[in-house]
Amino acid sequence: INSKLPTVGTTIFTVIGALANRHQAINLGQGFPDFSAPQALLERVDYHVRQGHNQYAPMGGVASLREAIAAKVEQSYGRAVSAEQEVTVTPGATEALYCAITACVRPGDEVIVFDPAYDSYEPAIELSGGRAVHLPLLPPDFAIDWQRVRDAINPRTRMIILNSPHNPTGATLSAADLDSLAELVRESDILLLSDEVYEHLVYDGKTHQSLLQHDELAARAFVVFSFGKTYHVTGWKTGYCIAPAPLTAELRKVHQYVTFVAVTPIQLALADFMTSCPEHHQQLAAFYQHKRDLFCEQMAPSRFQFSPTQGTFFQLMDYSEISDQDDLSMAEWLTRERGVAAIPVSVFYKEPTTVRYVRFCFAKEDETLTQAAELLCKI
Amino acid sequence: INSKLPTVGTTIFTVIGALANRHQAINLGQGFPDFSAPQALLERVDYHVRQGHNQYAPMGGVASLREAIAAKVEQSYGRAVSAEQEVTVTPGATEALYCAITACVRPGDEVIVFDPAYDSYEPAIELSGGRAVHLPLLPPDFAIDWQRVRDAINPRTRMIILNSPHNPTGATLSAADLDSLAELVRESDILLLSDEVYEHLVYDGKTHQSLLQHDELAARAFVVFSFGKTYHVTGWKTGYCIAPAPLTAELRKVHQYVTFVAVTPIQLALADFMTSCPEHHQQLAAFYQHKRDLFCEQMAPSRFQFSPTQGTFFQLMDYSEISDQDDLSMAEWLTRERGVAAIPVSVFYKEPTTVRYVRFCFAKEDETLTQAAELLCKI
Ligand SMILES: CSCCC(=O)C(=O)O
Ligand SMILES: CSCCC(=O)C(=O)O
Repeated sequence: INSKLPTVGTTIFTVIGALANRHQAINLGQGFPDFSAPQALLERVDYHVRQGHNQYAPMGGVASLREAIAAKVEQSYGRAVSAEQEVTVTPGATEALYCAITACVRPGDEVIVFDPAYDSYEPAIELSGGRAVHLPLLPPDFAIDWQRVRDAINPRTRMIILNSPHNPTGATLSAADLDSLAELVRESDILLLSDEVYEHLVYDGKTHQSLLQHDELAARAFVVFSFGKTYHVTGWKTGYCIAPAPLTAELRKVHQYVTFVAVTPIQLALADFMTSCPEHHQQLAAFYQHKRDLFCEQMAPSRFQFSPTQGTFFQLMDYSEISDQDDLSMAEWLTRERGVAAIPVSVFYKEPTTVRYVRFCFAKEDETLTQAAELLCKI
Repeated sequence: INSKLPTVGTTIFTVIGALANRHQAINLGQGFPDFSAPQALLERVDYHVRQGHNQYAPMGGVASLREAIAAKVEQSYGRAVSAEQEVTVTPGATEALYCAITACVRPGDEVIVFDPAYDSYEPAIELSGGRAVHLPLLPPDFAIDWQRVRDAINPRTRMIILNSPHNPTGATLSAADLDSLAELVRESDILLLSDEVYEHLVYDGKTHQSLLQHDELAARAFVVFSFGKTYHVTGWKTGYCIAPAPLTAELRKVHQYVTFVAVTPIQLALADFMTSCPEHHQQLAAFYQHKRDLFCEQMAPSRFQFSPTQGTFFQLMDYSEISDQDDLSMAEWLTRERGVAAIPVSVFYKEPTTVRYVRFCFAKEDETLTQAAELLCKI
């Protein structure tokens, strides 16, 4: 069989995860917490499973969850959205991203993505016959160069994919960035896909700038969120997409035949918890900022260089003072020889790059972070 | 936005389901049970959720589930498959079907499907730029006419999609059918996609003929199964695909970026139950045959004509003695005016057709079936 995705191998998360297991390394690689989700959330799964809520959900998501999402969107971003026509619950944010791209991109279309980029965007674009146009985000701040975006836009440009807070760099878009974006797309029919799965993980008193807060942008955007990241349950694979009704209609046409629905008792449990514990996500930034600060403090004596991440639960560290090997070798060496698994950053770039960063996930118990930092400080 | 799937509307299952709710009709439409899954299975979800098994599963599925699947495949179909390289757990059989099609079909390729066909095949083919070539299954037995298949095959034929036991007709493929298929594809590089989600629902002493029992066919096939159908949990959205390692590798490249993984605690619960209660699926045929027979007996005095279905939990009924309206109108009328929701069959055909069948789902409590039959016998 002649591969349609010839360059795709096993994801780096699987590669590093397997290596971490083999060497019993502390796994700061793939982004997932090692602590428990709220007990009150976990209990609701059992409740619904035993109540017999185990058959197909409605295609767009269970009603109570869509309503809870609409309430949260209104509260967080001041936008009233229709639970019926603008909210779609999906089996993970990944599926929402995939369906949005697949619903809009046709052969010959171009999609602008910013590198480093999350690894699922490009295969989805390719499978639709589109072409990803990669624009670099440059260290140290990894900000978007809007002039380069302007230069890249042409009549074939169908979509721009944004990601803020940004994986893996932690960079966040500012209100000024959103205005620049709005100016660029104003006269076009370019669609936007905004990956905002780390919406609540923004630090140092800043707040997340969602495309949903910007009327002009929201009118042409699919905005994607994740329950896994917000409620510490990445393995529940539930996310959602907010988009204007005509875009939602196209997204759902694809979603309906890709997976049809997300898991019913999980959706119901999330709906209950969002309603009974609406303050959960309001404490998240402080919760994770503590972990970031702890990790950064303990890493201060190390030979890694870094500035504390602005968002996400990822911390980039520059290892150029330690070694001049490439970052994949460095990540493997850290995992194998130093007992701490990390993700290389070059894998998020399309073009070969000589970045000397590795990414550590700090969604871990304080003790785990302390142990990891101790090992890393010995290098 | 210019739709990539302009002919796709809301699925008939949603349309009829909503109508059933509005009119408080007994819902024999969409295929899902109204009775409980085994208690021992339900309990395992809570166990794993509370144990903290709530983070990402490995991309191909949790190891214990893949091993349980491999054991079941060996026991049911006498084929040894590699849990590591030939079994992929997916968020529902629908995702497995979608990923198999997307991994193999390119612009200009043809895919042979048999009408009536499950509604998700064609959109997946179209989104890959392929073309579905529809061959009819004709009443009363809805068997495949292998001569027509031979005539339809040409150098552009990339894949043939099989579905046995067949939704919505209940028809099953025989060993002779599989031999005919093998002869047709022998000298070609045509791939096979076999939707066998109703594998255990075959009646009257017959047994399911899986492509996995046929070496030549299995060597070029993706074979798709569903936990939802077998364990009475359609809302858990978990299925799996068995395919030779090179095909599995391509399937996973797509799956990895479409959804990445299925839900972890659900996978673990299914693994436990398959191990502790391996006899569950061996009783399924008798369990559902009782329901089919009950429903058919009670429908005998009605003006519907039918012969008992050979497989699946669907029973087609010919209403031509009752009415000459089209089947969509008939299904809506039954739901609205007669209190029993049914699915029209013409929606599973690409070409306009004048079939006079509606489909009833008998995966219901005996009492539900009795009540429905009473209402239907009054017509
Ligand atoms: C879908 S697995 C990867 C999880 C993640 O988002 C990350 O580690 O970057
Ligand atoms: C995915 S919803 C449809 C369920 C089903 O398989 C059917 O009713 O035919």
